[in-house]
Amino acid sequence: MTGTAAARSLAVGVDLGGTQVRTALMRADGELLARAAERTDLAGGPRAVVGQISRLVAAVTQDVAPEHLAGVGVSSPGPLDNVAGVVLSISTMPGWVDIPLVAWLTEALQRPVVLENDGVSAAIGEWRHGAGRGLSDFVYVTVSTGIGGGVIAGGQVLRGRRSMAAHIGHMTTQPQGETCTCGNQGCWEAQASGTAFGDRARRELAGRPDSALATIGAALDGRHVMDAARAGDALARDLVAHEAAELGLGIVNLLHIFSPQAVVIGGGVSAGFDLLQAGIAEQVRRRALPPFRDVPVVPAALGPNAGLVGAASLVLAA
Amino acid sequence: MTGTAAARSLAVGVDLGGTQVRTALMRADGELLARAAERTDLAGGPRAVVGQISRLVAAVTQDVAPEHLAGVGVSSPGPLDNVAGVVLSISTMPGWVDIPLVAWLTEALQRPVVLENDGVSAAIGEWRHGAGRGLSDFVYVTVSTGIGGGVIAGGQVLRGRRSMAAHIGHMTTQPQGETCTCGNQGCWEAQASGTAFGDRARRELAGRPDSALATIGAALDGRHVMDAARAGDALARDLVAHEAAELGLGIVNLLHIFSPQAVVIGGGVSAGFDLLQAGIAEQVRRRALPPFRDVPVVPAALGPNAGLVGAASLVLAA
Repeated sequence: MTGTAAARSLAVGVDLGGTQVRTALMRADGELLARAAERTDLAGGPRAVVGQISRLVAAVTQDVAPEHLAGVGVSSPGPLDNVAGVVLSISTMPGWVDIPLVAWLTEALQRPVVLENDGVSAAIGEWRHGAGRGLSDFVYVTVSTGIGGGVIAGGQVLRGRRSMAAHIGHMTTQPQGETCTCGNQGCWEAQASGTAFGDRARRELAGRPDSALATIGAALDGRHVMDAARAGDALARDLVAHEAAELGLGIVNLLHIFSPQAVVIGGGVSAGFDLLQAGIAEQVRRRALPPFRDVPVVPAALGPNAGLVGAASLVLAA
Repeated sequence: MTGTAAARSLAVGVDLGGTQVRTALMRADGELLARAAERTDLAGGPRAVVGQISRLVAAVTQDVAPEHLAGVGVSSPGPLDNVAGVVLSISTMPGWVDIPLVAWLTEALQRPVVLENDGVSAAIGEWRHGAGRGLSDFVYVTVSTGIGGGVIAGGQVLRGRRSMAAHIGHMTTQPQGETCTCGNQGCWEAQASGTAFGDRARRELAGRPDSALATIGAALDGRHVMDAARAGDALARDLVAHEAAELGLGIVNLLHIFSPQAVVIGGGVSAGFDLLQAGIAEQVRRRALPPFRDVPVVPAALGPNAGLVGAASLVLAA
């Protein structure tokens, strides 16, 4: 049976990010058997990072017989061309322009390699082994530095022209709102990302020096606000309510547009999902048509591993 | 060859609406060979309307040999269950609650009958025989009394849970905007439908009695505004610019969400598409990420026949 599809029941997932390169060996059931990570060698550029990935893949597969390994799936920031296997650009990683990552890694690893956008990878991870398991239609939203995501519609990954679908963070939810990094006013991510949440906290704090948040100083970010809200701080609770309302606006739009069976929320901000849930639900109740109001909005199940699990799943499904 | 798939090259499309019931005999290439219509018998209720549809279908098929007719496709306002063939409710048609329209029509016509949501039918019509021909990913938007539509994604009709996807008119584009018929504030259709366009014209006119629109009186609607804008009336041109900006906001969101190859605009307001186009393009330029800015936004090709053509196409494809 050596070399049959059944025997190739392991895959490596790689999560390429601007801070870390993370890899894991995954079993077909989604279990992660071994992990390795390094700080991303930004200064070394793409060739150095390909070297890092190769070493990390070797580290997590050292005990694996070659005939058991189906291949390597890479989740990467975009935009990228997942068919050609080329990273078109990564704004946070200098020198990453038109990098034929799949070709380079295939040569280095002598294994099948697939490349997928990080939002889509995470959506696939949650679909195959997380909060979206068994669903044919759901939207995955990741809320951290920005807002990204991926959509499963009719049992298929929504890709669109140039695989650029699901740029959900750049839908405009407040046309007269905050200026986004993209230049537009009121993109969802300019209103509701983790970055926007932290920025708003620092602004509001100026008028509320009584808040516990005042002791934190310039490092104040969304996590501090979540912690302070849990401890009952009034400003922090107002900020969480505002964040939930901004998140809810975009979620209401996704409900009407996709009619998903669920909306799954991941990313750093989802660590405070329990605090945000009531405010999101209130926005849905206020703004969604009645038949959309009972759609579950739930936290992601795989945390920071969603992208890596999704990328590895792609290799096993292929 | 009698009775083979090839021989069954004709289908009837039915467009069931609150004002008219329209039918046409369609050839597989999309050509409409015969048409018939009646004012919808709202007072008579669903049974009376089924009688109307039966007579109209008989009228357009009187010269057709039975073995050439593949069946009858019905486009209907929703919500409906297209799998079970049941109209769940039609807000503009009294008594239309849980009507097993496919069962009733199959019995009356002794032909295969399929039922489809009107927005989706029109999207399919434009896909098969109109402005979306040959595309795998496009969004159809119909702007008239409300805003509806349908989405083709990855070569498939986007359906979602309970076939309720593409309720695009109820995405919120202006959270502090107009109150929608659904109760929400700032739904796209409350901001940009033909109804909203006419309402805004009547409101704005109060402060601009010098406008040519002042001569029209209470009957003033979007068509008058388009006509006056063409004639150079300043208020009408302002109103058209505002309408284009409101339409553009929703279109920008659809670009980021679906990454379509085109956005196709139908419905009554699209009669003024030439006037709206520059304002829509300006909004796209201002608000869309650069790789989405070159996506064509084009007028629908089939006009009021899109739904009927799409419904008939469903029968021929089945």
